[in-house]
Amino acid sequence: MTIQNKLFEKSDQQTLLDIMMHRRDIRGNNFTQQAISSDDLDKILLAASIAPSVGLSQPWQFVIIKDQKTKQQISENFHQENNKAAALINDQKKALYQSLKLEGIKEAPINIAVFYQQPTSPILGQNSMPETGEYSVVCAIQNMWLMARALNIGLGWVSILEPQNVANILNAPADYKLVAYLCLGHVKQFFTQPELELVNWQKRQPINIKLHQEYFENS
Amino acid sequence: MTIQNKLFEKSDQQTLLDIMMHRRDIRGNNFTQQAISSDDLDKILLAASIAPSVGLSQPWQFVIIKDQKTKQQISENFHQENNKAAALINDQKKALYQSLKLEGIKEAPINIAVFYQQPTSPILGQNSMPETGEYSVVCAIQNMWLMARALNIGLGWVSILEPQNVANILNAPADYKLVAYLCLGHVKQFFTQPELELVNWQKRQPINIKLHQEYFENS
Repeated sequence: MTIQNKLFEKSDQQTLLDIMMHRRDIRGNNFTQQAISSDDLDKILLAASIAPSVGLSQPWQFVIIKDQKTKQQISENFHQENNKAAALINDQKKALYQSLKLEGIKEAPINIAVFYQQPTSPILGQNSMPETGEYSVVCAIQNMWLMARALNIGLGWVSILEPQNVANILNAPADYKLVAYLCLGHVKQFFTQPELELVNWQKRQPINIKLHQEYFENS
Repeated sequence: MTIQNKLFEKSDQQTLLDIMMHRRDIRGNNFTQQAISSDDLDKILLAASIAPSVGLSQPWQFVIIKDQKTKQQISENFHQENNKAAALINDQKKALYQSLKLEGIKEAPINIAVFYQQPTSPILGQNSMPETGEYSVVCAIQNMWLMARALNIGLGWVSILEPQNVANILNAPADYKLVAYLCLGHVKQFFTQPELELVNWQKRQPINIKLHQEYFENS
């Protein structure tokens, strides 16, 4: 490689900020049927492959799912899990919860299941905080999400799934753990704000209430 | 907000790819003493605040650490944990391991401890996969890492720390979990490749060996 010490400029910082600001979680009410080109899919997977990982372990594994029969099985699991989750929502918010479209498994042309492959020998940097293996996989997912948005492709992360059930459907080895189930497709629109904010489920919070100087006070 | 349906172009996709490709994990052999401006720090924290989070829960908390006394305490914990980790490395690689500079706690002008604030009531999307709370925090960290690189600022993620010990040093509430300890500063250089690849510790793997079509075969 010949790349060295590249200096980015204000316009590059603004481009990155714009991509981050316009990234949304996309659900089935918003995907179109337009196929994702293999060139675009390659770029999204390239973004994953250059993510940071603990000890350069690159512990990610990806399953690309297009088969409608598999999507149907995953979708059934979603509905089971979503019924359980809805039962926990308080009465005030239950009707709103049940009105929300929370996944796009069948509507998205491509689903990607992302797994964490657990190590079989010690990984540099993973001894004191074993979770950093899974965290590496999440860094790869966030890279994918941003690259998808830069390609004007929507991505939705479905977490209302029983992970072992999904692993079984996909015939995953026993030492692989599901980290995320992603739905990818072109979109009708990218909303101006997070959908959960638009429907008054939850608001974005200013960063200053999350900031502490030097240590936590009064804890 | 008036932003709608923004379409990114090829040049934007290339800028994002460049930032991802040039992002490195930075350690103490590579930080300079130059202070980070409050404007740059604000941009890095802004990038965190617009990361995706499960149910828009935004469960992240940040402690900005500049005090050398605190850094000294954290550094002592690193050395304890690193001695334990070194003992697990096989003899063939032990000398190489011990020659590696794996953190920049005292050299970096700013350290940021990033915590996950555990929820006190059910979060939309977090019932079936509770880890998605921590994963949201990791998405914020990856956004910070990319924005730092776009600002030509180095970031190193130190994971060789006993998390409860760090939480105690920073007086964290009992329900806050340390996800990452980050070191930020300007750098002498951004290496052309991951440092662990340059020193022949581990190689980057092609994405195709991580890819599976429709399901896992032969597991």
